Amino acid sequence: MTPPPPRILNVAVVGAGAIGRGWASLCAAHGWRTALFDTDARAIDDALGEVRRRVGALVKLRRADATVAERGLSHVRVGRSQLQACHDADWVIEAVTEDLPLKQRLFENLERVAAPDAILSSCSSGLPMTDIGAHCRDQTRLVVAHPLNPPELIPLVEVVPGKFTSAATVEVVRGWLRDLGRIPVILKREVPGNVVGRIAAAVYRECIDLVLTGVIDVDDIDRAVSLGPSLGWAAAGPHLTYHLGAGEAGLGAFLQHLLQSFEVWWGSLASWTQLEPEQVRALTALVERTYGNQLDRISASRDRRLASILQALESARKH
Amino acid sequence: MTPPPPRILNVAVVGAGAIGRGWASLCAAHGWRTALFDTDARAIDDALGEVRRRVGALVKLRRADATVAERGLSHVRVGRSQLQACHDADWVIEAVTEDLPLKQRLFENLERVAAPDAILSSCSSGLPMTDIGAHCRDQTRLVVAHPLNPPELIPLVEVVPGKFTSAATVEVVRGWLRDLGRIPVILKREVPGNVVGRIAAAVYRECIDLVLTGVIDVDDIDRAVSLGPSLGWAAAGPHLTYHLGAGEAGLGAFLQHLLQSFEVWWGSLASWTQLEPEQVRALTALVERTYGNQLDRISASRDRRLASILQALESARKH
Repeated sequence: MTPPPPRILNVAVVGAGAIGRGWASLCAAHGWRTALFDTDARAIDDALGEVRRRVGALVKLRRADATVAERGLSHVRVGRSQLQACHDADWVIEAVTEDLPLKQRLFENLERVAAPDAILSSCSSGLPMTDIGAHCRDQTRLVVAHPLNPPELIPLVEVVPGKFTSAATVEVVRGWLRDLGRIPVILKREVPGNVVGRIAAAVYRECIDLVLTGVIDVDDIDRAVSLGPSLGWAAAGPHLTYHLGAGEAGLGAFLQHLLQSFEVWWGSLASWTQLEPEQVRALTALVERTYGNQLDRISASRDRRLASILQALESARKH
Repeated sequence: MTPPPPRILNVAVVGAGAIGRGWASLCAAHGWRTALFDTDARAIDDALGEVRRRVGALVKLRRADATVAERGLSHVRVGRSQLQACHDADWVIEAVTEDLPLKQRLFENLERVAAPDAILSSCSSGLPMTDIGAHCRDQTRLVVAHPLNPPELIPLVEVVPGKFTSAATVEVVRGWLRDLGRIPVILKREVPGNVVGRIAAAVYRECIDLVLTGVIDVDDIDRAVSLGPSLGWAAAGPHLTYHLGAGEAGLGAFLQHLLQSFEVWWGSLASWTQLEPEQVRALTALVERTYGNQLDRISASRDRRLASILQALESARKH
């Protein structure tokens, strides 16, 4: 029996910033009919060119099929009319700035312009759907589906149902994400920053602190995180890593040896919760001095490394 | 001009636990003459067998050359006499339990049995060399060189000089680590947990908290960290990731959009510094229920993924 042909969805992406363009590229690369919308004319101006460029990069990196992507690209529409973008969408993906009142107003409006059975998701990295959709009449079809940057390459998408999201909505979005080659992970309840934002915030605070207190240089801490713990966690998540950390004896034995060290470190980690403007300036200056401003070129190398790692993981998992 | 033949070092590894066996495997895989020593007869018993197994795995995973590894394995000695293990070593690598008085006594002793120009390093994951070597007469040749687990696969080694470590010692160890295919990163000063322990502690606290408070299941948080942030950081460290997070505008623009979110998350992260015994039991039970106890098999798959990722990064960096 041949597998059923993949579903071709009508998708509307609302917000043509970095994340919105990434979602649109991902959907187009899978042959979906994609509308990308923004009220800001400047955001729209070069959006189509960038979606083409990103989809082309996915094909070159062997993360998309050339024929399917070509078909998807021929159906990309970019515009400023929300109604036009959303009226025939099966799935409306909100990808605007992280600003609660802005998102609330947008969802009130999306509820009116989208078909009654369309699913509406938010890319919010940390706001709860229950708040974002607070002014909507039907909250059962609303859900957070938060990708990482760049969304067309990093497979994880956090799916966070709000208090009123239906189980059916979660299941449908999970299926669509899988169709897009994503790996959805479902949170059991809402929490500030979802899980990725919290992990990222914990790491970033320490990375900022170690640089600003002169323990290590920017490029050295980046290299250390890349080629040390991240590499380990990319191969096995933190809980499994420590379960494997003491041989066959498992996590119990590991904690018996190492919990005391962790407790010392927990007690000594950075615990500030704000950055002063002069710290932001100092950090920005250090990072700019380290990496300069040829960000397009650096970003393309990063994407090459990402695509290689993904391919490596996929082939290792086949064993 | 042909490159000079690689140096063949005499190395003594003191402590035949998971980390010591990993170091010994790494050195043997590079053809070095390796002595592995432990006072505990049980630790020594199956150490040689495991070093052989690990070196064989490195060859199979194409992380070591079969001929060189064969030569290295023929020179591995395992025993209980510290003097015999260390007297002709160029480099003595301490890899015993993370216990300050134990390490202090050991270094006092190593100073007596090692050659006067040997370098003595500690695998400590978080204790400062200045404390570990406090009772030694010559502290200029002491340095922390902390690998991750498994040391023969993860390339990062944190090098942390103590207050009295000479610049020459740091340079020599850095060279040896490069000969072993490692990527040394030098810290500018000592700090509890070095940098890796701090990053790991920050991530692990949040991963424990999210599981124990019922936000997400063990395997889902592991999958999220693996296939989300870790994948991103493996391709570009945290500072570079955020410098690339707002397109060409760089870190300044990124922080303008996202600093407010980070500040909310920093304020809401787990901040406890100890785990109660019942929390340790609950966590251990959840992790064991999730991953079971076929740790050898799981660990071999993890190592396959690690080796694949390393190869992918190396080939992507050649572009």
